[in-house]
Amino acid sequence: MSVRLTESHYGKARVRLVAVERGAERHELADWTVDIRFGGDYERAHREGDNAGVYPTDSMKNSVYALARDHAAEGPERFALRLACHFLTRPARPAAVEIAIEARPWRRIEVGGAPHPHAFVAGSEERRLTRVAADGEQESIESGVRDLVVLKTTGSAFAGFPRDEYTTLAETGDRILATAIEAVWRYDRAPRDFDAAHERARRGLLETFAGHESRSVQHTLYAMGERVLEELPEAGEIRLRLPNRHHWRVDLAPFGRDNPNLVFVATAEPYGLIEGTLSRA
Amino acid sequence: MSVRLTESHYGKARVRLVAVERGAERHELADWTVDIRFGGDYERAHREGDNAGVYPTDSMKNSVYALARDHAAEGPERFALRLACHFLTRPARPAAVEIAIEARPWRRIEVGGAPHPHAFVAGSEERRLTRVAADGEQESIESGVRDLVVLKTTGSAFAGFPRDEYTTLAETGDRILATAIEAVWRYDRAPRDFDAAHERARRGLLETFAGHESRSVQHTLYAMGERVLEELPEAGEIRLRLPNRHHWRVDLAPFGRDNPNLVFVATAEPYGLIEGTLSRA
Amino acid sequence: MSVRLTESHYGKARVRLVAVERGAERHELADWTVDIRFGGDYERAHREGDNAGVYPTDSMKNSVYALARDHAAEGPERFALRLACHFLTRPARPAAVEIAIEARPWRRIEVGGAPHPHAFVAGSEERRLTRVAADGEQESIESGVRDLVVLKTTGSAFAGFPRDEYTTLAETGDRILATAIEAVWRYDRAPRDFDAAHERARRGLLETFAGHESRSVQHTLYAMGERVLEELPEAGEIRLRLPNRHHWRVDLAPFGRDNPNLVFVATAEPYGLIEGTLSRA
Amino acid sequence: MSVRLTESHYGKARVRLVAVERGAERHELADWTVDIRFGGDYERAHREGDNAGVYPTDSMKNSVYALARDHAAEGPERFALRLACHFLTRPARPAAVEIAIEARPWRRIEVGGAPHPHAFVAGSEERRLTRVAADGEQESIESGVRDLVVLKTTGSAFAGFPRDEYTTLAETGDRILATAIEAVWRYDRAPRDFDAAHERARRGLLETFAGHESRSVQHTLYAMGERVLEELPEAGEIRLRLPNRHHWRVDLAPFGRDNPNLVFVATAEPYGLIEGTLSRA
Repeated sequence: MSVRLTESHYGKARVRLVAVERGAERHELADWTVDIRFGGDYERAHREGDNAGVYPTDSMKNSVYALARDHAAEGPERFALRLACHFLTRPARPAAVEIAIEARPWRRIEVGGAPHPHAFVAGSEERRLTRVAADGEQESIESGVRDLVVLKTTGSAFAGFPRDEYTTLAETGDRILATAIEAVWRYDRAPRDFDAAHERARRGLLETFAGHESRSVQHTLYAMGERVLEELPEAGEIRLRLPNRHHWRVDLAPFGRDNPNLVFVATAEPYGLIEGTLSRA
Repeated sequence: MSVRLTESHYGKARVRLVAVERGAERHELADWTVDIRFGGDYERAHREGDNAGVYPTDSMKNSVYALARDHAAEGPERFALRLACHFLTRPARPAAVEIAIEARPWRRIEVGGAPHPHAFVAGSEERRLTRVAADGEQESIESGVRDLVVLKTTGSAFAGFPRDEYTTLAETGDRILATAIEAVWRYDRAPRDFDAAHERARRGLLETFAGHESRSVQHTLYAMGERVLEELPEAGEIRLRLPNRHHWRVDLAPFGRDNPNLVFVATAEPYGLIEGTLSRA
Repeated sequence: MSVRLTESHYGKARVRLVAVERGAERHELADWTVDIRFGGDYERAHREGDNAGVYPTDSMKNSVYALARDHAAEGPERFALRLACHFLTRPARPAAVEIAIEARPWRRIEVGGAPHPHAFVAGSEERRLTRVAADGEQESIESGVRDLVVLKTTGSAFAGFPRDEYTTLAETGDRILATAIEAVWRYDRAPRDFDAAHERARRGLLETFAGHESRSVQHTLYAMGERVLEELPEAGEIRLRLPNRHHWRVDLAPFGRDNPNLVFVATAEPYGLIEGTLSRA
Repeated sequence: MSVRLTESHYGKARVRLVAVERGAERHELADWTVDIRFGGDYERAHREGDNAGVYPTDSMKNSVYALARDHAAEGPERFALRLACHFLTRPARPAAVEIAIEARPWRRIEVGGAPHPHAFVAGSEERRLTRVAADGEQESIESGVRDLVVLKTTGSAFAGFPRDEYTTLAETGDRILATAIEAVWRYDRAPRDFDAAHERARRGLLETFAGHESRSVQHTLYAMGERVLEELPEAGEIRLRLPNRHHWRVDLAPFGRDNPNLVFVATAEPYGLIEGTLSRA
């Protein structure tokens, strides 16, 4: 039988890195999880077990720590670019390299109303995403957010949908809308300040979610995507992925009570899942 | 062979409840997970399968929703007390009942700098804890917090410990200290405002963690516990449980770099675990 | 304000250990997670930050690995006893020490119908539990199992329970019964062969679950506990904890179909939780 | 600003389904989690909130249960095909539909050495995967497995790799190899018996893992993929994804002991991740 290797990648996943910038006035904290992924022709490694072209994933991990010492403070996008370039100069240079960074948010503890110089409290499960791909000729940069969990108690409807014999869902003009926003936008050119651009996009997502009169998750997805592309002239595309975290109004009639959108049960599974990509026309 | 049932409990765990208080100006949100646990003599149920004394856990769940409609706004401590009393009046009344509530924090989304009246963004993995036990004669009330995750980049040491042939750990005068605070305090009498008391205790934990010159996790645990008892004259005891979330300084010497507390690897397992109870003398 | 430390423990949690016994014919595998917990008077450590009595948790971890080299093959109960005794001889000897081990099951891969000498496939999420406590005078030994997940499609009922205005649950003479067995038994004296005793108890749990005509989870709990105490004359007590993993029959009437116990939805939350302790009379 | 929707999908994720086939002699159990994903032109829904073309995800869920009543016994591949065809006849017919099913393994409890007719014990975290895509003209069928966790204590090496100044990893001729196999193969034509084909592929993966003298994870990946394509003449392609679950030999020298591959620490993160696709030439 004749078989061939038609695609191959490898790398190190989930390298945990905590980097401290020890300023005179205060410390800055970067809490990242880094993924490295090499692409190339690894046929000989696979078929014959010849490792001459297999740069160890352990060395990838070491490189993250070594470079982080002086460069983590540049922020995740620039650090990922630097890391990608670094790997393209290693022995057994890969044809292409991808770097993904998830940054965990921390806030300063307030002491007597003032932010503390070196003590932090963890933020939410939200993560700031960075993805860089490079092959020595071209680079692509994406930024984004995942698990930005939001909920609104009104301003959301779902009606006018097609019905058939499998449809039992009631139309509603007022429901809870809850989701965990995953949004990744592609930069066609680098913004001057990646942190500021990220903050602008994030604020746009939140404000649009809050203010939009939603007729469906799709409707809100589009409005959020459009807003981010408005906020970020450097971005050409945004992909959004919105689980519909259902909150079902509990039927209290058996207990002699009405329930005018006061008591809900939130269910984890199953959930609707809405995905869409918006591009600048 | 002769066997007897020497202890028995049952109940419903993890009843998810989202309750909305729909004020004219703005909505308030309670996002709780409720556990109910009955204690009593359930020998006949166990030995003979006689369910005459087994109030269904499904009815416990229904009760949570029915009572939440009018009473969730009272806050978790008062709601838990109400729920406990409710169950003590049911058919097949339990000898004792315990209610535990975990409240998930949400913050209002800011739109144009102002908090939105009905749109929220999820807070951290931190949970506010409430535990009530009642038997018709006595009630106990505990409040607390879990997974209040904190980290400081300096102001923590660990030295002067005993060494033997299994000890390889170096003494350190400066390390990262990180933990997920679990603290539960017992009220000897009810404070006037449970929310305000909780906020005072939480602020005390955070400020003490930040400002304390720590010689060990134990040392910080004690300082935090003492502070909460100072803040809450109504509380007679506090139990703390602090995992030591180790951040190891990466050895960069093989790569020709020093590492003056700049680059760390955070490990999930194993972890130190420090537990202590402080009582008012 | 006067405060005192009324209870204190510390230790190392979740020490992952994989030990290989390299026999001439075949290899044996122990895959354990070990917790160590010291108890004693740690007032000076807490109050003053004096670490002279704080044996490092890092040294506890080192001890696990060092002792495992020669002794993991003795099995988790004897290894835990050895480890406990070891710690009672260390500097800053604790007043009491507890060791808990969770063992992960692996099965040999079958190749050509025969078990392979050194290749394994992971078993289920089930864990074998071992808990030892020692203070230099007395020792206690417990064994058990957790997350032994079982399900039967018939032979389970729930009826005859008390009803009130919060009760909507229908009585049923035939339902799915599913649970994740947690059972821990206390040895009053050591059995000759801990592995064989564990296997006998485990088989008793499974066979009883399968064959018992269940009138409630409580009813099955008792039958399982009684069976284990019959199987293990060395055990004086058993504690069981059985979540009721609800499988709800889906109402297919809206779609013009009946559902004679054919299609179910399994829900994770909320769940009933039944706990009981049986002792030899 | 001009923006357009360039891609769009939606559906229901994680529909939990337990279906019982109640035979005269014994019951069969299907424990599945089903994902449904519609593709098409949903521009009007997104841009205008017009739901006339948005078949509710709740109706998708209902369809799963309704069809499962009579057809779950056909197995996941044929059920997924049936479900896909079903959705292509619904109102607001999608342009394309994808169905993914994860099946959880259960084994019969043995009572007195014989498999019980209706009582089961859960298998491992392994899942059997089925993925079907259809658009009314073409259908694709994939099968596979994920989290098939395996480990061998010898017969694995990693040496001859390129080194640079970031390389500290030692070459090894004998190490533990552990992974969680994810393998998905594409059927170019349907096998006569999907269950038998899956079992053949699975056995091929396990036997190859066990017997292969591994020079790297890549080397083993290729051997496993080649074996599955040999076993399944109907399959044209297989994709494998193998995390390298590192087991590091513990350095016992500080404690005066050698460690000839006896004691290891298994780490969860970071991990190597090897991916490859093999196609029939």
